Amino acid sequence: MRIAFLGLGAMGQPMASLLLKAGHDLSVWNRSREPVDTLVKAGARALTAPEDAANADVVISMLADDAATHAVIVESGLLAALPAGAIHINMATISVALATSLAAAHQARGVGYVAAPVLGRIDVAAAGKLNILAAGANDLIARIQPLFDCLGQKTWRFGDQPQQANAVKLAANFNIACAIESMAESAALVDAHGVAPRDFIEMLTSTLFASPVHINYGGMIVKQSFAPAGFKLRLGLKDVRLALEASNNANLPMPFGSVLRDNFLDAVAQGDGDLDWTALSTVAFRRGGRAG
Amino acid sequence: MRIAFLGLGAMGQPMASLLLKAGHDLSVWNRSREPVDTLVKAGARALTAPEDAANADVVISMLADDAATHAVIVESGLLAALPAGAIHINMATISVALATSLAAAHQARGVGYVAAPVLGRIDVAAAGKLNILAAGANDLIARIQPLFDCLGQKTWRFGDQPQQANAVKLAANFNIACAIESMAESAALVDAHGVAPRDFIEMLTSTLFASPVHINYGGMIVKQSFAPAGFKLRLGLKDVRLALEASNNANLPMPFGSVLRDNFLDAVAQGDGDLDWTALSTVAFRRGGRAG
Amino acid sequence: MRIAFLGLGAMGQPMASLLLKAGHDLSVWNRSREPVDTLVKAGARALTAPEDAANADVVISMLADDAATHAVIVESGLLAALPAGAIHINMATISVALATSLAAAHQARGVGYVAAPVLGRIDVAAAGKLNILAAGANDLIARIQPLFDCLGQKTWRFGDQPQQANAVKLAANFNIACAIESMAESAALVDAHGVAPRDFIEMLTSTLFASPVHINYGGMIVKQSFAPAGFKLRLGLKDVRLALEASNNANLPMPFGSVLRDNFLDAVAQGDGDLDWTALSTVAFRRGGRAG
Amino acid sequence: MRIAFLGLGAMGQPMASLLLKAGHDLSVWNRSREPVDTLVKAGARALTAPEDAANADVVISMLADDAATHAVIVESGLLAALPAGAIHINMATISVALATSLAAAHQARGVGYVAAPVLGRIDVAAAGKLNILAAGANDLIARIQPLFDCLGQKTWRFGDQPQQANAVKLAANFNIACAIESMAESAALVDAHGVAPRDFIEMLTSTLFASPVHINYGGMIVKQSFAPAGFKLRLGLKDVRLALEASNNANLPMPFGSVLRDNFLDAVAQGDGDLDWTALSTVAFRRGGRAG
Repeated sequence: MRIAFLGLGAMGQPMASLLLKAGHDLSVWNRSREPVDTLVKAGARALTAPEDAANADVVISMLADDAATHAVIVESGLLAALPAGAIHINMATISVALATSLAAAHQARGVGYVAAPVLGRIDVAAAGKLNILAAGANDLIARIQPLFDCLGQKTWRFGDQPQQANAVKLAANFNIACAIESMAESAALVDAHGVAPRDFIEMLTSTLFASPVHINYGGMIVKQSFAPAGFKLRLGLKDVRLALEASNNANLPMPFGSVLRDNFLDAVAQGDGDLDWTALSTVAFRRGGRAG
Repeated sequence: MRIAFLGLGAMGQPMASLLLKAGHDLSVWNRSREPVDTLVKAGARALTAPEDAANADVVISMLADDAATHAVIVESGLLAALPAGAIHINMATISVALATSLAAAHQARGVGYVAAPVLGRIDVAAAGKLNILAAGANDLIARIQPLFDCLGQKTWRFGDQPQQANAVKLAANFNIACAIESMAESAALVDAHGVAPRDFIEMLTSTLFASPVHINYGGMIVKQSFAPAGFKLRLGLKDVRLALEASNNANLPMPFGSVLRDNFLDAVAQGDGDLDWTALSTVAFRRGGRAG
Repeated sequence: MRIAFLGLGAMGQPMASLLLKAGHDLSVWNRSREPVDTLVKAGARALTAPEDAANADVVISMLADDAATHAVIVESGLLAALPAGAIHINMATISVALATSLAAAHQARGVGYVAAPVLGRIDVAAAGKLNILAAGANDLIARIQPLFDCLGQKTWRFGDQPQQANAVKLAANFNIACAIESMAESAALVDAHGVAPRDFIEMLTSTLFASPVHINYGGMIVKQSFAPAGFKLRLGLKDVRLALEASNNANLPMPFGSVLRDNFLDAVAQGDGDLDWTALSTVAFRRGGRAG
Repeated sequence: MRIAFLGLGAMGQPMASLLLKAGHDLSVWNRSREPVDTLVKAGARALTAPEDAANADVVISMLADDAATHAVIVESGLLAALPAGAIHINMATISVALATSLAAAHQARGVGYVAAPVLGRIDVAAAGKLNILAAGANDLIARIQPLFDCLGQKTWRFGDQPQQANAVKLAANFNIACAIESMAESAALVDAHGVAPRDFIEMLTSTLFASPVHINYGGMIVKQSFAPAGFKLRLGLKDVRLALEASNNANLPMPFGSVLRDNFLDAVAQGDGDLDWTALSTVAFRRGGRAG
């Protein structure tokens, strides 16, 4: 099975490495050259352009956003060049709308399309411990399951329409953003009563909220340690907007989502867009006249 | 040490039982007679009125709300009758404002006052595994620590002003309500895309959000099992309002709190005030035209 | 008809003057002495304490807020001293809850109680052109109508329960606050696109929104002229909170009210509580990273 | 001056008629035939396709939304066929983003582009009394001013970049939607206190809010008369979304806009998308458990 991996960013690079270590026939492409060279040294072949991936059996893409995905998959001519029977696994976080139109465009050409966005940051990806949120035709997923097993600890299935996995991924990120905002508002409240946010968050994440998200992000809120960014605030805003866009199309009010949008915009307007998205927590403190 | 326990509701009764089993000299009072009788059979003495608690060394109160607390502690004449040197431990969830005024009133009479609201539902209380959120003078808390050790698995300290513990308790409940709303909005979003909320919540609470709150409440949202209520929706609204009241006094915007207020009011207006507070989740589904 | 006027603030003083000029037998009281002296020179009699108003036929009160009203009317002993058949006209903006309890307390003593909060600022009061929002028993209002005709251009009737007029007054102020916020957000939006807020507001208030509120407050938003305050921002917050309190009791979500609460708190937290309440508009500009 | 008018909907038809009556050389196009026939009888020439407008000196378009505008102006080939020196006046309410890209596309071809959305409904358009919100190059607007004078009572100028007028139009519609929501929430509040919304709105629109928008829409809220729609609720939602999209790009929180989005979505989800947009008011009543 010849695999082409497109997009060797912070997540894509360790994922591609894992596939290579597992002995797969891998060719890679990235917009910038450096990560390509790294993988070539480890045994991958370099593609000079995305459309050169057309002779792979499976194309995996892990690109930054809707625009990059559309450019690399469609505008490059790759999709038009892929033969019927090929499979494209899109593991990036993209909009439901783009996923829907990509699914249709692939189907029209007889190319398989599976959406498989992931949960987990860089270290989790490097360890092959991602949670993979997959949607698409059963037979396609069955064929690529070995690849998922190489990259993740578990594959979660969410239906046979690819965009369903993207909706789930946006919904999951939405819950993370809500947890940040919720801890921030309540930490500011106890702070206003003379209780150290650290003491409050430690109690909270040792008891009711002993979850990976709360422990990890709660700690960052307490330390006010927002750089370097694990996930940039402006990307968090992007994902909230994609969730709201999906809710628009479903006629679904999401008032927490609306608050998140406004507070993320506030943070970006104050110049914090490139900080880690836990810097969202500074908005609650600043609006209450507190240092944070 | 003679202990008087006032308020034998769903939480107070198992807590008083634990103290009794540990061999404490316990007298009890409750507005209705039945739980008093139960405890008397187990060895407690019955008080005919709250003010009869005035000859105890330690008074523990676990009353429904601000109004009940004020009636039983102040209006009954109990506080006026307590001798200097007595200690009152208020374990109920009350407002920061009432806690502040009670602290002052006790101090004026030379009576110790400790706020010690708890985390945990009935079964946790019965097992003596509560998390106790305590604030008050160090020497007072040192003296009553054995009682806390009998009732809880851990005592968390939040400062020497009693109302600080109440602020923390309201902040903790606020996070629970936020988790319910966050799961509800996102479950409605995936539902609108044809993904079963059950599948989504199971994934979420198995990965990023594997916390007691998310697992417990997420399960109830999925099952839509809201009766009998573990904690009534109208009490959830009450606690959100107390958090907002505290934020008013601190000049702190809490936009998630504002959304919660509005959605809890919506739920109560539709007649769901006596359901479990996870029924808050039905608001997101109903507003999106979904069955829930 | 002997009239006692309690509360000679910015609004009360010109109102009392009008009654005096119309030839009424007027005695006056105020917490500070200066406005009393002014009215005494013009022919009024000074009361040394609120309870001295007990021998008047009609008591009019125009006090700052709930606390002042309760102190002057109830705690002073005035209500207990008023004879059956006397009438108390409360023209201040107070809570629905206090109005309800005052109505009951007056009724229990056989004293008439009419709520008659007003629309209009100082200059309107001085000109006798207030709009009077009245609620209470028909026969009572009929008897005091000549007083209203002296003070206002029109009396609007809103039912026979006094608190109904207070609900209406809070609802009217709510609309003003909403107009300020609405103009502020949209002015910031056009500003972000290089259009001067002045040009936008001028067009708006010359066409669709040619109302007194929009013209007056829109002009202040454009000029950013917030001192001295015509109506202090912290009083605007107080009225929004009273509206929300009334909505709490009615199980009515008011999401615009929730936004107003949060934004007013933001403004107070930044130190703007004593500016005119149109300074609410600075929140929208500041959060968007704009000078305003 | 040969004029081509594209889009003869509820607004376009009376506008085109006025130009014809004023003696202009007018050719017209519309997706459906009937309004074309009406204008041809009155002396206009029919165009069989949008691109046939390419030999006009001035093209005026008044199309339903972004999609229709892009289809008729760009995808039809019209823009590519227009000679340098021609002028296109776009009077529709479209997004800031589309206006920006259209402005660039016209400039690249040497075709003048002026944005001139309008305030006023059908009867105002028929009377030639629209308020025209214009932005674009001064010399272009000077040349077409006689056309604006024929269609409107006043031309308001908002800068030399066409999209500035679109931002202003969206900001104006935003204020109307806010006025509807504000009146709705407050009318529900007084209703909950036994005051007829009719009495409240009548007072409000006779005093503080005696503006065309409040009088007109307030009356519709009171009558609950939402069909036939003067302006459909789903179009109101569309314009709120365009305002939010513009605020996204400007990093500007608009919390009132967020509430409007959620409440409009609620109304559409309940099946009210084709009612007049004042039906937004039913959301406040319904959420509060009131009939409305």
